[in-house]
Amino acid sequence: MAIRFSISSQSSESAARRGRLETPHGEVETPVFMPVGTKGTVKTMTPEELRLVGTEMILSNTYHLYLRPGADLVAAAGGLHRFMHWEGPILTDSGGFQVFSLSRLNKVDDDGVTFRSHIDGSEHRFTPEKSIEIQEQLGADIIMAFDDVVPYPVAYERAARAVERTTRWAYRCCRAHQRQDQALFGIVQGSIYPDLRRRSAEELLALDLPGYAVGGLSVGEPKDLFYALLHLTTRLLPWDRPRYLMGVGTPDFILEAVWNGIDMLDCVLPTRMARNGTVFVSGGRLTVRNAAYARDFGPLDPTCTCYVCQHYSRAYIRHLLKNNEILGLRLTTWHNLHFIHQFMAALRQAIAADRLGEFRYRFWQERGATPPDYARLTRGLRSQLAERA
Amino acid sequence: MAIRFSISSQSSESAARRGRLETPHGEVETPVFMPVGTKGTVKTMTPEELRLVGTEMILSNTYHLYLRPGADLVAAAGGLHRFMHWEGPILTDSGGFQVFSLSRLNKVDDDGVTFRSHIDGSEHRFTPEKSIEIQEQLGADIIMAFDDVVPYPVAYERAARAVERTTRWAYRCCRAHQRQDQALFGIVQGSIYPDLRRRSAEELLALDLPGYAVGGLSVGEPKDLFYALLHLTTRLLPWDRPRYLMGVGTPDFILEAVWNGIDMLDCVLPTRMARNGTVFVSGGRLTVRNAAYARDFGPLDPTCTCYVCQHYSRAYIRHLLKNNEILGLRLTTWHNLHFIHQFMAALRQAIAADRLGEFRYRFWQERGATPPDYARLTRGLRSQLAERA
Repeated sequence: MAIRFSISSQSSESAARRGRLETPHGEVETPVFMPVGTKGTVKTMTPEELRLVGTEMILSNTYHLYLRPGADLVAAAGGLHRFMHWEGPILTDSGGFQVFSLSRLNKVDDDGVTFRSHIDGSEHRFTPEKSIEIQEQLGADIIMAFDDVVPYPVAYERAARAVERTTRWAYRCCRAHQRQDQALFGIVQGSIYPDLRRRSAEELLALDLPGYAVGGLSVGEPKDLFYALLHLTTRLLPWDRPRYLMGVGTPDFILEAVWNGIDMLDCVLPTRMARNGTVFVSGGRLTVRNAAYARDFGPLDPTCTCYVCQHYSRAYIRHLLKNNEILGLRLTTWHNLHFIHQFMAALRQAIAADRLGEFRYRFWQERGATPPDYARLTRGLRSQLAERA
Repeated sequence: MAIRFSISSQSSESAARRGRLETPHGEVETPVFMPVGTKGTVKTMTPEELRLVGTEMILSNTYHLYLRPGADLVAAAGGLHRFMHWEGPILTDSGGFQVFSLSRLNKVDDDGVTFRSHIDGSEHRFTPEKSIEIQEQLGADIIMAFDDVVPYPVAYERAARAVERTTRWAYRCCRAHQRQDQALFGIVQGSIYPDLRRRSAEELLALDLPGYAVGGLSVGEPKDLFYALLHLTTRLLPWDRPRYLMGVGTPDFILEAVWNGIDMLDCVLPTRMARNGTVFVSGGRLTVRNAAYARDFGPLDPTCTCYVCQHYSRAYIRHLLKNNEILGLRLTTWHNLHFIHQFMAALRQAIAADRLGEFRYRFWQERGATPPDYARLTRGLRSQLAERA
């Protein structure tokens, strides 16, 4: 086994758990947030700085690295860890989501996807076997099965077909996968249809994979639907395997994901938001680019202990951002990653102390809101499930 | 006195000297190269990283900071050191050069310069008094007198007028200058005319300033003319004051400047060149953006000990630069600053050991060239000087 997952604490009020993921490139405390290093770099940060802000594991994108600089080049460099000088664990996605969302003119058939590069329009084809081949060249610790990604909203029939394909492709990924030092995770699809989610999970569980991801959420659906499907889908995944929610990176969604038993998350949001001049602060967000902060000589977040908040003012950071100075992008990114990792640490602590309910209550109270009521939110979906069953 | 300058070693073969500059924000080993932090940030670098690569003093631009974020804002933040979190010495230029080279529609008269901002076209006026007022608000350790900057080539008469103005303006700067914790340097002008250079130096020396700069060189004149005027002008400056050559940052020019007795230099070149994908390496330069390095897994410079050369390959840095990744700009900048500061350290060591002649000979030999022959280069200029005398 390439990875080992163990649970050290279990919340008595929720499905949340605190654990540890061992990989060939070191251990990770879960629940973990993975910053995204799309092109083999978490934008603006060095690996040493990632460590400083608390990053333990990163995600990198198969689609992007395949196009540039090419998976064979990364392999020739000794693999992605060495190429980018990140010695910690890496997860690569399968390319399925990017082929669907970024490439021009993608055409899906039962065997794979033909697409044109978003960079130069050149034609390429990904199949499950090709995705695994690339991911083996990149050499991440955790790799993802190639899935059929559908938009939101999508008709039931198309979603059902995507589930079928995703299952068949997962089998093909398993057969193609050779490297013993990489763990292959499956991705549960099914859009917003509970019976499809159940079918997808059941079929993939038969493969007895070392971990499972929830895909196809946080793709534009209403918040309540996100919460309901998160709740229903997470319960379908095996208790003893890491559960990974793809593409979620705001504190509210992270908290609820963890509450529902998610162990791993990734998202470009904290870093992308930072480059757009918005930072996380206790209780919300702050757009430091705004004119209101031109003469604000206080730190981004007065309660924050990060390097940026110790040494720089809102006025200075705003000045840098307004003048397109790279240091501005570095400082907001640094702060946001520190913030999100601190948030994860607080969640892990709350689970270990079995006080996640209290933590969650206060979190929502600070925002003048109440936590999602899963019984209510899932009622409609459950009855839909019952009808089809 | 805001600063104290002492010379610890003197080259027996040249005018070079090794010394120390004490400022209210710490000591600097000379000869020193000052990276340029135009808008209150040395592009891509944190102050801690500047220290790591060997930066002891930086330059920042009065013109830019006056326009954005405004000198009053910087003053309200507690001064430039605090605003940008650089605790070491800072030198600000007077704005004269930027008003001349960057602004739109500048109009010089005997009292000052009226110009339009290169950002928004708004009208502004700099006088010697205004330049000093701004520089006092910024609070650098060394500030520069406001000079009348002329292009190359320029007619003798215009250059003579610029020298007259520069002298008169220097007197006005002295009268306007209040802060005892800042040292005011004069700038010798005179374009390529030796008698004007001599007149400018003599007139400014009468002010008994704590330091003198050579201005108006490295502005497009042929190399040989640069060397000749550098040689003639440096000898006009007092031995016991720091001598600062403005806007020079290539190893060959730096070496020759130091050979001629220059103690301080600044230039955007090492950092700008880095952002364009070209780095210094032993014996020359390397454009790492070039396709030739796509699969070159060696460091930028195999003999370099910097962080970048320890951990990253040319192939990776090229990949970052080709994809407009900020980390690429950071790594090339880091390396170039490390390189230039190492070069300065080597020069200081060679002076202290009184082996600068040998160092210089080898430097030029490695490049398949011979050092400038100042006797020959200055012959024409000296006869021109004799004629006018």
